[in-house]
Amino acid sequence: MMNFKELVKANRSCRRFDNNHPLSPQILGDLVDLARHTASAANKQPLKYMVSSNPEKNDQIFSCLGWAAYLTDWKGPEKSEQPTGYIVVLGDKSVADKFFCDHGIAAQTMLLGARAQGLGGCMFAAINIKKLKGFLDIEDHLEVKLVIALGKPVETAQIDDVGENGDIKYWRDKDQIHHVPKRKLTDLILKSW
Amino acid sequence: MMNFKELVKANRSCRRFDNNHPLSPQILGDLVDLARHTASAANKQPLKYMVSSNPEKNDQIFSCLGWAAYLTDWKGPEKSEQPTGYIVVLGDKSVADKFFCDHGIAAQTMLLGARAQGLGGCMFAAINIKKLKGFLDIEDHLEVKLVIALGKPVETAQIDDVGENGDIKYWRDKDQIHHVPKRKLTDLILKSW
Repeated sequence: MMNFKELVKANRSCRRFDNNHPLSPQILGDLVDLARHTASAANKQPLKYMVSSNPEKNDQIFSCLGWAAYLTDWKGPEKSEQPTGYIVVLGDKSVADKFFCDHGIAAQTMLLGARAQGLGGCMFAAINIKKLKGFLDIEDHLEVKLVIALGKPVETAQIDDVGENGDIKYWRDKDQIHHVPKRKLTDLILKSW
Repeated sequence: MMNFKELVKANRSCRRFDNNHPLSPQILGDLVDLARHTASAANKQPLKYMVSSNPEKNDQIFSCLGWAAYLTDWKGPEKSEQPTGYIVVLGDKSVADKFFCDHGIAAQTMLLGARAQGLGGCMFAAINIKKLKGFLDIEDHLEVKLVIALGKPVETAQIDDVGENGDIKYWRDKDQIHHVPKRKLTDLILKSW
């Protein structure tokens, strides 16, 4: 396996996939099992999951997601490049009334785990919640926190430094490479003792 | 390096450290550089960081943290087992008004990166914010999201299945092994298609 820093750098949000590369309940379950082993605020573990690698269910979930807001001329991947699996991350309000950043901890762990096996994915918070709750029959005590789209990547992403103008919007070049401007380390560390 | 699943399982919250094992600004900066390469909601990257590997500053930060609420007869590590470094995760309100789960994504990535090099740590949200802001001179546009305590672990932690009674409180046995009950995978995956 690549070393951990290489894994983190390789783990770019991916929005175009090989729709002919199927996932399985087992692969998705193994990713949730990674999340199961992560820290949770006061160890309450209020997160629950629904997973899909089924083409018909995937189509329903796909239709609930808002894709890449900064790419205004792109409404999302065409059928041949759509994700082949989803993990819906839910906060169970019968377990805890606040979820803190548990879903960030869990989602990042699952995406790193996907990338470590050559898969890729993207977290979505821009979700048509009402529609998704209908399609998946999500009960009222479950709050939709994130949807993670997964599959075999067919997209190349590259990190650039944020330029002089400070613009952080990602963009695609003429070769369809996805560029993601990231702030410099010296701009992130305000004080060091 | 161990494989990714082993890394995630090994990455238990650690609350006792070898206080004679120093960290450095470089080590802490490298961890922040990992966080720099992670996903951020709408790529806004509103998180900023303050880091300390300085013993006097560490003492100040230590005094602001609430340790292991479930271990009611333990007020935190004695001096010889205190952390030797801290990363304070801040949300810059001049960049974004909401931070979503960005701090969870960043913190988990830094803790996995620490564990991959034989270090360990713990996320704290139970913080005396007012005191910490005074000690570190944190400006008002910065919201304290988390403090991550770091060092060389001298504690063994073990994951158990949550028992019949559903109790999720972590506990220490007579050999000072820290036990963390985690829910079973079958209790986390509500539906699978």
